[in-house]
Amino acid sequence: MPERGLLVSAPGKVILHGEHAVVHGKAALAVALGLRTFLRLRHGGGGRLCVCLPGVGVRREWDVAELRVLRDRIAADFDESKSPSVEQLDVLKEFAGIAADASAPDSLAVLAFLYMCLAISAKYGDVPSVDIAVWSELPTGAGLGSSAAYAVCLAAALLHACRAISCPLKDGEATARWTEEEMTLINSWAFQGERVIHGNPSGVDNAVGTWGGALRYQSGKITSLKRVPTLRILLTNTKVPRSTKVLVAGVKEKIVKFPAIMNPVLDSIDAISQECQSVLEAMPTNPSPEYYPVLEELFDINQHHLNVIGVGHPSLDRLCRVTASHGLHSKLTGAGGGGCGITLLPPDATPLAVEAAKRDLCACGFECWETDIGAPGVTLHSSSSLNAEVLHALAES
Amino acid sequence: MPERGLLVSAPGKVILHGEHAVVHGKAALAVALGLRTFLRLRHGGGGRLCVCLPGVGVRREWDVAELRVLRDRIAADFDESKSPSVEQLDVLKEFAGIAADASAPDSLAVLAFLYMCLAISAKYGDVPSVDIAVWSELPTGAGLGSSAAYAVCLAAALLHACRAISCPLKDGEATARWTEEEMTLINSWAFQGERVIHGNPSGVDNAVGTWGGALRYQSGKITSLKRVPTLRILLTNTKVPRSTKVLVAGVKEKIVKFPAIMNPVLDSIDAISQECQSVLEAMPTNPSPEYYPVLEELFDINQHHLNVIGVGHPSLDRLCRVTASHGLHSKLTGAGGGGCGITLLPPDATPLAVEAAKRDLCACGFECWETDIGAPGVTLHSSSSLNAEVLHALAES
Repeated sequence: MPERGLLVSAPGKVILHGEHAVVHGKAALAVALGLRTFLRLRHGGGGRLCVCLPGVGVRREWDVAELRVLRDRIAADFDESKSPSVEQLDVLKEFAGIAADASAPDSLAVLAFLYMCLAISAKYGDVPSVDIAVWSELPTGAGLGSSAAYAVCLAAALLHACRAISCPLKDGEATARWTEEEMTLINSWAFQGERVIHGNPSGVDNAVGTWGGALRYQSGKITSLKRVPTLRILLTNTKVPRSTKVLVAGVKEKIVKFPAIMNPVLDSIDAISQECQSVLEAMPTNPSPEYYPVLEELFDINQHHLNVIGVGHPSLDRLCRVTASHGLHSKLTGAGGGGCGITLLPPDATPLAVEAAKRDLCACGFECWETDIGAPGVTLHSSSSLNAEVLHALAES
Repeated sequence: MPERGLLVSAPGKVILHGEHAVVHGKAALAVALGLRTFLRLRHGGGGRLCVCLPGVGVRREWDVAELRVLRDRIAADFDESKSPSVEQLDVLKEFAGIAADASAPDSLAVLAFLYMCLAISAKYGDVPSVDIAVWSELPTGAGLGSSAAYAVCLAAALLHACRAISCPLKDGEATARWTEEEMTLINSWAFQGERVIHGNPSGVDNAVGTWGGALRYQSGKITSLKRVPTLRILLTNTKVPRSTKVLVAGVKEKIVKFPAIMNPVLDSIDAISQECQSVLEAMPTNPSPEYYPVLEELFDINQHHLNVIGVGHPSLDRLCRVTASHGLHSKLTGAGGGGCGITLLPPDATPLAVEAAKRDLCACGFECWETDIGAPGVTLHSSSSLNAEVLHALAES
């Protein structure tokens, strides 16, 4: 397999409960999404390093010898425990022809790629002569952890190319996962990639991308839930653009304006995350319908609370109303003010009801995916285990 | 005036904030409604006591001498500080031909009338030979304090007929109100009437009917707000029937099921009542539009909270949505689960927007009144100060 290349994937994430409250020290539950990012690594022979990101229109190629020189210029303090320095990133931007204040996904993806490649190779081996293609089922900028899934895939592939981690996929196996120790290393390097892209990320997204399942995040501490069932959901993007920064500031303002009214709401949201965690940890892997009413009730309550703290939006009200008309329960996920919502699909939701809900959501101009949460984290794949669409997208590069 | 008769009115009430939370020891704000109950007392000469309630189809007449005998049978412990006894009420029911388990408004209205008439006359004078007609702008059974407004009017009229209170209306005056001391007496006898009708009322409705304006109620303690502006509102009856008892039990059940999630919501509602009280007490009598956004925000937040504690209803969601489409903010008032909603009408709401909102609410099958809150309590009227509709309704008797 190392000779023939590598196929890796990592999941996106959604916040199940605790968005915004987490900014104020409360718990949040983040879960791995069934929509994934896929990476194909091929060993090249020509002393070139190629990266191709068909989703954002990127195709870049560098001379490995040139990258070695570049690496040695900035290698003084490559360390996965330290943030990439401004100086390092400035040198990389200049090298790659990226504007100093670039913020477009394609520029940040190339920058993270270069940083991770040079930093990992500085620590574990030589700059690899490989072709890397990455393609994602996740939309970018929708709060679904697409940058983290990208960074996790890159970290796994580059650590593997530098022989810092093994290749656990045995012949004849469809998928395989790394050891806990290897995943810890992948996660820490993925966090470096996230730092390049986001500056000061929480680390939740890359943790979900690496470990999968569900994580609890509170005051900087990330813990995996003991066990998590796989739950079917609809993920709906209202496509209403919003600024997370403005929404976070609005919540802060409301808390300052009405502390006695708003602080109890944050306490209630915290208790919802706790209750949801307990319910999820008590659910069997393939839960029967009777587990769902509590999850649905928690969705409904939190959706009201999110409206109270001012991050609702008429498009999200509409999403909830449309799904409610089919007996399904939804809440916004992430920043709110538009963006995405999730809808639980209990096992007894009829395919007809689900199809009707999807049709009605699309009729609102929303984009809608039927997928699941609680998905596995970073995974190695045999090419026969990937579907044709993914293989085709990766081959186009 | 005593010779020519008496015209009295008392307002209904709505809960502005704190419904349901009040059951759990939190504060509630009750405000007097612009919709009123009117009573006309005429001194008769034929030794008869007549009561006519055209709204509930009641017309009863008794011989005063017969009532004196009845009174003496049960007069042992008439006292406005003690609840009417089951024995007293059983005797009155038998006398009036009311079934032991009667609960229809007409039966309870006759029973309260008889009790109040005999009890007040036992304490202050003779059974009066009068004709009393009562008519109300308030729908019954909609949580708008119609029974309390009735009891307040009756208490004032009967106390006046027995010369226990004065007639403060001077010739040429349109309206007049009693002294604090007289209103305290009216309120305590109105509470007796409420006890006949409701068994174990909180006393808030009759207090609002007596004092008007706005009252805070918490853990059995009723206090008047220092001052209250008159605020224009739409009062909308969804006409969806509901059981207050079932709704109260449902809230209790949710608190028991999710104490850590629900108790903070009750705390937040308590803080909303407190904040609203502060805002109202700081408002001038004719408030300008800039005072309204906070009141509207508190409406929106509380409406979400009421949904969280499980007393919302699709009809109330619809009411809120319809008024929101005209830029107006609404919440349910009272028990919820249907019933009534109130909509704030800021001074800068255009007549066109208000008319459009009313038309759209009526198109939903709702009944809608444009009225105000913060109305005066029990009031004496000259007949020229009452509008033709009221005089006509009272004259029909």
